Amino acid sequence: MSTQIPIAVRNRVSERAKKTLDVVARFVEEDCIPADTVYEAQIGVGDARWEAHPQILEDLKAKAKSLGLWNMFLPKGHYKESPGFTNLEYGLMAEWLGKSRVASEAVNCSAPDTGNMEVLAKYGNEEQKAKWLKPLMDGKIRSAFLMTEPQVASSDARNIEMKITKDGDHYVLNGQKWWSSGAGDPRCKVYIVMGKSDPNNKDPYRQQSVIIVPSDTKGITIERMLSVYGYDDAPHGHGHITFYNVRVPAANLVLGEGRGFEIIQGRLGPGRIHHAMRTIGAAERALEWMLMRINDPKKTPFGKQLREHGVILEWVAKSRIDIDAARLVVLNAAIKMDEQGPKAALTEIAQAKVLVPQTALTVIDRAVQSFGGAGVSQDTPLANMWAQIRTLRLADGPDEVHLQQMGRNENKRGKAVTDKINAQKAKAEELRKKYGAKRTEIGSNIKHSKL
Amino acid sequence: MSTQIPIAVRNRVSERAKKTLDVVARFVEEDCIPADTVYEAQIGVGDARWEAHPQILEDLKAKAKSLGLWNMFLPKGHYKESPGFTNLEYGLMAEWLGKSRVASEAVNCSAPDTGNMEVLAKYGNEEQKAKWLKPLMDGKIRSAFLMTEPQVASSDARNIEMKITKDGDHYVLNGQKWWSSGAGDPRCKVYIVMGKSDPNNKDPYRQQSVIIVPSDTKGITIERMLSVYGYDDAPHGHGHITFYNVRVPAANLVLGEGRGFEIIQGRLGPGRIHHAMRTIGAAERALEWMLMRINDPKKTPFGKQLREHGVILEWVAKSRIDIDAARLVVLNAAIKMDEQGPKAALTEIAQAKVLVPQTALTVIDRAVQSFGGAGVSQDTPLANMWAQIRTLRLADGPDEVHLQQMGRNENKRGKAVTDKINAQKAKAEELRKKYGAKRTEIGSNIKHSKL
Amino acid sequence: MSTQIPIAVRNRVSERAKKTLDVVARFVEEDCIPADTVYEAQIGVGDARWEAHPQILEDLKAKAKSLGLWNMFLPKGHYKESPGFTNLEYGLMAEWLGKSRVASEAVNCSAPDTGNMEVLAKYGNEEQKAKWLKPLMDGKIRSAFLMTEPQVASSDARNIEMKITKDGDHYVLNGQKWWSSGAGDPRCKVYIVMGKSDPNNKDPYRQQSVIIVPSDTKGITIERMLSVYGYDDAPHGHGHITFYNVRVPAANLVLGEGRGFEIIQGRLGPGRIHHAMRTIGAAERALEWMLMRINDPKKTPFGKQLREHGVILEWVAKSRIDIDAARLVVLNAAIKMDEQGPKAALTEIAQAKVLVPQTALTVIDRAVQSFGGAGVSQDTPLANMWAQIRTLRLADGPDEVHLQQMGRNENKRGKAVTDKINAQKAKAEELRKKYGAKRTEIGSNIKHSKL
Amino acid sequence: MSTQIPIAVRNRVSERAKKTLDVVARFVEEDCIPADTVYEAQIGVGDARWEAHPQILEDLKAKAKSLGLWNMFLPKGHYKESPGFTNLEYGLMAEWLGKSRVASEAVNCSAPDTGNMEVLAKYGNEEQKAKWLKPLMDGKIRSAFLMTEPQVASSDARNIEMKITKDGDHYVLNGQKWWSSGAGDPRCKVYIVMGKSDPNNKDPYRQQSVIIVPSDTKGITIERMLSVYGYDDAPHGHGHITFYNVRVPAANLVLGEGRGFEIIQGRLGPGRIHHAMRTIGAAERALEWMLMRINDPKKTPFGKQLREHGVILEWVAKSRIDIDAARLVVLNAAIKMDEQGPKAALTEIAQAKVLVPQTALTVIDRAVQSFGGAGVSQDTPLANMWAQIRTLRLADGPDEVHLQQMGRNENKRGKAVTDKINAQKAKAEELRKKYGAKRTEIGSNIKHSKL
Ligand SMILES: Cc1cc2nc3c(=O)[nH]c(=O)nc-3n(C[C@H](O)[C@H](O)[C@H](O)COP(=O)(O)OP(=O)(O)OC[C@H]3O[C@@H](n4cnc5c(N)ncnc54)[C@H](O)[C@@H]3O)c2cc1C
Ligand SMILES: Cc1cc2nc3c(=O)[nH]c(=O)nc-3n(C[C@H](O)[C@H](O)[C@H](O)COP(=O)(O)OP(=O)(O)OC[C@H]3O[C@@H](n4cnc5c(N)ncnc54)[C@H](O)[C@@H]3O)c2cc1C
Ligand SMILES: Cc1cc2nc3c(=O)[nH]c(=O)nc-3n(C[C@H](O)[C@H](O)[C@H](O)COP(=O)(O)OP(=O)(O)OC[C@H]3O[C@@H](n4cnc5c(N)ncnc54)[C@H](O)[C@@H]3O)c2cc1C
Ligand SMILES: Cc1cc2nc3c(=O)[nH]c(=O)nc-3n(C[C@H](O)[C@H](O)[C@H](O)COP(=O)(O)OP(=O)(O)OC[C@H]3O[C@@H](n4cnc5c(N)ncnc54)[C@H](O)[C@@H]3O)c2cc1C
Repeated sequence: MSTQIPIAVRNRVSERAKKTLDVVARFVEEDCIPADTVYEAQIGVGDARWEAHPQILEDLKAKAKSLGLWNMFLPKGHYKESPGFTNLEYGLMAEWLGKSRVASEAVNCSAPDTGNMEVLAKYGNEEQKAKWLKPLMDGKIRSAFLMTEPQVASSDARNIEMKITKDGDHYVLNGQKWWSSGAGDPRCKVYIVMGKSDPNNKDPYRQQSVIIVPSDTKGITIERMLSVYGYDDAPHGHGHITFYNVRVPAANLVLGEGRGFEIIQGRLGPGRIHHAMRTIGAAERALEWMLMRINDPKKTPFGKQLREHGVILEWVAKSRIDIDAARLVVLNAAIKMDEQGPKAALTEIAQAKVLVPQTALTVIDRAVQSFGGAGVSQDTPLANMWAQIRTLRLADGPDEVHLQQMGRNENKRGKAVTDKINAQKAKAEELRKKYGAKRTEIGSNIKHSKL
Repeated sequence: MSTQIPIAVRNRVSERAKKTLDVVARFVEEDCIPADTVYEAQIGVGDARWEAHPQILEDLKAKAKSLGLWNMFLPKGHYKESPGFTNLEYGLMAEWLGKSRVASEAVNCSAPDTGNMEVLAKYGNEEQKAKWLKPLMDGKIRSAFLMTEPQVASSDARNIEMKITKDGDHYVLNGQKWWSSGAGDPRCKVYIVMGKSDPNNKDPYRQQSVIIVPSDTKGITIERMLSVYGYDDAPHGHGHITFYNVRVPAANLVLGEGRGFEIIQGRLGPGRIHHAMRTIGAAERALEWMLMRINDPKKTPFGKQLREHGVILEWVAKSRIDIDAARLVVLNAAIKMDEQGPKAALTEIAQAKVLVPQTALTVIDRAVQSFGGAGVSQDTPLANMWAQIRTLRLADGPDEVHLQQMGRNENKRGKAVTDKINAQKAKAEELRKKYGAKRTEIGSNIKHSKL
Repeated sequence: MSTQIPIAVRNRVSERAKKTLDVVARFVEEDCIPADTVYEAQIGVGDARWEAHPQILEDLKAKAKSLGLWNMFLPKGHYKESPGFTNLEYGLMAEWLGKSRVASEAVNCSAPDTGNMEVLAKYGNEEQKAKWLKPLMDGKIRSAFLMTEPQVASSDARNIEMKITKDGDHYVLNGQKWWSSGAGDPRCKVYIVMGKSDPNNKDPYRQQSVIIVPSDTKGITIERMLSVYGYDDAPHGHGHITFYNVRVPAANLVLGEGRGFEIIQGRLGPGRIHHAMRTIGAAERALEWMLMRINDPKKTPFGKQLREHGVILEWVAKSRIDIDAARLVVLNAAIKMDEQGPKAALTEIAQAKVLVPQTALTVIDRAVQSFGGAGVSQDTPLANMWAQIRTLRLADGPDEVHLQQMGRNENKRGKAVTDKINAQKAKAEELRKKYGAKRTEIGSNIKHSKL
Repeated sequence: MSTQIPIAVRNRVSERAKKTLDVVARFVEEDCIPADTVYEAQIGVGDARWEAHPQILEDLKAKAKSLGLWNMFLPKGHYKESPGFTNLEYGLMAEWLGKSRVASEAVNCSAPDTGNMEVLAKYGNEEQKAKWLKPLMDGKIRSAFLMTEPQVASSDARNIEMKITKDGDHYVLNGQKWWSSGAGDPRCKVYIVMGKSDPNNKDPYRQQSVIIVPSDTKGITIERMLSVYGYDDAPHGHGHITFYNVRVPAANLVLGEGRGFEIIQGRLGPGRIHHAMRTIGAAERALEWMLMRINDPKKTPFGKQLREHGVILEWVAKSRIDIDAARLVVLNAAIKMDEQGPKAALTEIAQAKVLVPQTALTVIDRAVQSFGGAGVSQDTPLANMWAQIRTLRLADGPDEVHLQQMGRNENKRGKAVTDKINAQKAKAEELRKKYGAKRTEIGSNIKHSKL
């Protein structure tokens, strides 16, 4: 909460945001976390899981609204609908949301809706906004974002193959999508779909379009849901969906034909910050559970509580360091985005994207280990957390893709630093002359080599 | 298979074992692996999963027997029931078994039955053998091993609290157990239970007894099953079981009161080798799946197949090195056990126990990553493998316990090496005198310190 | 330089500090780095190395003064002698100083003088200041800090044994010290010595005193200098020094008998930030050298420049991420120290202390590797950098000590988080009742367990 | 020594080798290690270091010969000059040699002479053998191997540029070499030089020749020696050498023009095993020093000896595991080489080449850390060991080159495993049909998707 904001960024957080942050923190700790297992229980078992919408979540949403916690993700300045927080400020809140399974949805800040709302708010026309943005902002419906396809390497979005063909005043979609997160939820009413309207365009970044598809359009089938390390993530879930001659009005196209890349690029920055800060929150919660375990007076392997084992204390310390470092990286990226926009902050965002999940996975895995058998089971939130966060090393672009990209970026300095170092060497040569200083290389007087 | 046996150990593998190994390898690749997903399908959904016993497994067992593959785990020399393989030889077979979910059971070599059969064969009396060992060896029933308890740190077995109270010619058991693997299976007919018959004995290693408890004894309740990262492992599963005044004949006691520790110690060696070699097999299979993915011509992120990305090739190479090293460690331990018995091989076994799961987890995680989204889902065996093997860093003693133990063991040399190094220093001093060699310490002529 | 200040902290850096930072950066890149190898050449060979004081350094000092770069380390507000920069602002400058061997001394900001000057400024009386602080601040003399002793584990300062005995109006010192950095320099005129004046005091933190000892006092002998991975660090160096009945006036005692701990505690905060930021600078320089190498058109193993090898690009990217994260951690600690004092910032400082050297060592080691053989030799600054920074995992307290300390600190939350989690569980139980939600545990309906 | 041979390979070690191994072990521990610091003292300081040949080494050589320890490296079977040990057997001895600086030379088994002797024994004609092999085998002279050049990426040997031009019955050499190890020694009388005799040959592996060059040939200049992390490795050292119109008789060519690659390939296998086993020995010695330190009763930070700190015990245990695993990898490679020749063992050798130095560096670095300040200084053998072994990640081919190579090799299985997995999937499909087992994909019955 507000007293724990890293000092380096504290002076950028408004009093109003601090107050809201405290409300968020309390709401999460006192209402949402206790609700998590209730929610899970209410979802039920078997096929019913995919039709569930537990009442407890609607009650939490009502409470959240009454507390003034709603849509905080929509950044100030950019959108009139925004409650007026910066990315930094919302980032700090997202950390708390990340501790609970239900919290993000309870305050209408959950993915992929957040990203989809941003797309509609930024690129949608008035009609699209009225029809889809409004109910999303009101938490009446949910949405999915359909880009990834099973038959191609989707980390390179140029590979996407879904066909979007103009037919009179309609577009017709054919193809398949998977990892459509949220598609399981019965309240998921709309898909934001990326596909190719102009597959032969010479510019590989102009072949794509993004189009709004109501989830109940004829020709759409949810073939199955994908599991994540044994978890189904119901009712939200991750759909494998086929499109067979799916017709939507041409008016559903966002921004214009060939502008798909532009749209998904714009979508990514803030979402990565949200995910990263939620992940930080999860790591913090894992650390708290670990602290609970290592102080459990009933758990004394080899005559000592776990907190007395040096190895375990080192895990605690390293976790603390790594989480704190990772948080600063995300917040720095959020500030950059606030001040200079997502484009200028690309590198900072990518750093957070890569660093945070790896950090959190290590922390959570230590917590799992400290719990013994209990750690991998349903009795702690840890195993599930780990599985969720493991996917963040893949989703929104695998680590390797970001690292190559960042490597290339950094390497752009290659020529400049080479020139600088060469100039420094030349200057040193000059100075050596000036001072009459002879380079004393060892062995340069070796006698037996003088013939 | 036999041509791939590391050259260092090949000369210890009999021709008969090599032939059997080849039969195992073929059986696993051609019969068991294809059966895995069928088995999973036959188990079904919901509560039914715990009553399932898919026909395909019985068919595989029949085939295995006809191929002469049965109970290979029971080491040669020690048991008359043994088919006559060394731990080394069976270890090599276990590697192949570890590639498939159903293979170990198909050849009646699956945990915890193997360990339980060893207990009965080694410590059971004739009656106990006839009643329980026989049907286990025949694959007619299954069994569970109940040591771990939720309310104490069970990695230190002295903490176990289950009460075993003599009452006439019966023992009465009260307490709870969890992580009772295999208890979910409807064919699980017998529990090998560890508890305290003499909790006040001064010797903390003499308080425990091991007793045979039929699973259908009154007073036993399976409260629930524990999940492993979202997987239920049905029908096998991991039970949380309560004992309320559970009465069993005194004749069910194994070996005698107060000998529980002795028994569980004897149980552990071979089982750890089996687990380790199965884990090596799993890692090999993960690597194969990864090789498939990185050579998939349809998957070309950024214009190249994955095999052309240097980073990915490095993963392949490192995986190869690490698996091969880990395998040698296990096989070396197996040989030591064969030649000098499990007690002499304690350190070697512990090394394998700690090294192998960590190695395999890294290899599997790389494979997951190479698959992108598919890696965490049900579409590859990888996510499930990872979860299973993650538990091996906890089960049978957490890493930390083994490391502390090994550290202490190694440190026993402390005094001897100190003496040796001191002797070497003294000798050097002598030699310096003899040769008139002055130690030339830098700075020892510093002028400004000579006042 | 100023344009590269992480955005998160930029708004706390005054315009004046930004300007000074740019001057520092330029001075380092254009004057100091080229001077480094000249300085090394001028030191010479053999015993002469310990009597050297190259002219080039005095010339740099003159230039630095003329540029207004002098004593920037002395934090604003606390000392009247300070040029008026915050720890944050000086930290940013220290990053640049850390790129060059001679830069810190050239601007009179080099260890251990900085720490010693702080001790004298903070705890010294007027006479002590006039005699020792003044010439140190003027760059006329140098100093050493003598705490560590060879015969005890000095990471725990309570073990220190140097005897400080009152004898009339003098103190007499007996004992030995090592790792007395800077003692090699002929200009090192004064030692700040920690020892025990009251070894039997019950409070182990009140046994020590700190006393000022002129380096030319009778009874002091520099026995030899210690090397660091083959480097002698001459003329600065690390002395092994014996004290035999060394008499100093009682007036040389700092602050009072028994206050040694208090003094060395106060000494540590800022110095750790300086070291950390210098280390960040070194890591940045290593990365630049690496970029030079991987873009060298003459170096094309296997037909490609190194920058085209995916593995190498990943090194670049990871280095970028890790350096940036580490820098934020240090700067956050500096800000905390600025705003709340070193005591409040203990944890943040310790985090920086542990994280930064490990990060830098990894980055530098990658750079070494990218250079092939050249990397370990005298032809790059890398091998020497690595050796220097490796010692930072030991000096000023080994990593392990800090980690244990931080672990214990963090663990103080143990009870509070346990209470919170238990309250959350209780609340969940309540909610389950309220919503009539039954916990659905898998396997709880297992039929074959219902007898 | 012989009782510590890993059990897996013990049965391949002849009684004679075991006895010799025990003699080696004793010779190293009792004679060589004490001699190490004496030798260092006798080398002296400054330029004299390059002219030194301490008497103690000649005395050790005499003693070694009298013990029957001489040229054990030359593998049995291949060379008539061999004392008759296998690579495995010598490998075990090399482990002991690696503990001492002088031991390898004392038994005439030190690099680069060993490799050079193998080249001459394998490819040299009788005259060449008489002239160069004989005195080398007798320990009368020493040699260097000159391949690497400063101006090109020499890890790819095709880049080598040294010109070898035929001129009548002479060859004339022009170019420069560096990292010519051993060139510093006054007894280094001969260079084995690789260069290009046919730079325009279409086959890039036929352009090179290897030629024998007496070190006192006119036109050769040792420009300077290269340092390794501050160590000069005198008198051996690593030379930077220029060749200006260096004429040698045509008879000095080895094997024939264009056969340079063939020769250096043949040279590499055994040498890598030697280096690897020596490195294992160094790691063992580091561990022993660490054990000494953590049992030092005078060193009790925070009230406990280091051996009582859990973290430190874990270091000990991990070091034990990692060394033992690495040793098995090397010995397995040695056996493969013994049984099937170096070519068949390429992968195994490369595994050892990459794995062992990394393992040893980690172990040594832990030992350094456990010593506190002393660890980085001249007071333990650790810092120097670390520096030596760090170079093994570069020399004889950098890690990255071997990893890429191994990755490509392993990937050759790509198609085969893909076919196998596909066949398994097809078989599974068949079985599913046969058993009427429907794949139960979660979510495939989602109601709200059925329109
Ligand atoms: C839980 C979860 C939720 C998701 N939610 C959504 C969603 O809502 N909507 C949606 O459209 N998608 C979603 N995704 C999909 C996700 O964005 C993709 O999985 C991801 O972009 C990777 O694409 P891919 O799976 O096709 O893998 P591929 O593109 O085939 O990549 C596979 C692997 O190849 C390697 N690789 C790729 N490029 C390089 C390179 N240049 N260098 C080195 N290695 C490389 C990486 O290791 C990578 O992991 C989700 C995924 C998961 C797991
Ligand atoms: C999938 C699975 C299957 C299993 N099957 C069975 C079975 O069939 N039968 C059965 O009886 N049990 C079984 N177990 C239980 C398993 O053996 C125990 O979980 C294990 O022994 C650890 O005990 P614990 O869970 O009580 O953890 P604890 O003993 O509470 O230990 C918790 C953690 O404390 C730390 N720790 C402990 N000691 C030390 C130390 N000395 N130094 C530093 N850190 C330390 C470790 O990190 C450890 O993980 C199974 C477990 C799993 C996960
Ligand atoms: C280059 C360099 C410059 C230095 N400059 C100075 C100087 O100017 N003035 C000065 O006084 N000193 C200086 N030092 C000394 C330095 O501060 C000490 O080396 C350091 O404090 C460690 O003390 P020690 O060497 O006595 O190691 P010890 O205290 O013996 O510690 C040895 C090792 O024990 C382990 N250890 C210790 N405590 C614990 C624990 N609680 N848990 C687990 N493991 C533990 C750590 O691994 C530690 O490295 C310098 C050192 C170096 C290397
Ligand atoms: C102590 C020591 C002793 C030596 N002794 C001898 C000797 O006696 N005789 C002799 O001839 N040589 C000797 N060498 C030289 C040694 O063999 C070379 O340094 C080594 O082969 C690397 O060549 P290079 O230095 O030219 O580096 P380069 O070939 O320029 O390689 C530099 C770096 O590029 C990277 N790289 C290269 N290829 C790839 C790739 N395919 N993918 C990814 N990254 C890659 C690696 O990180 C590598 O370290 C010695 C070296 C040392 C350090």
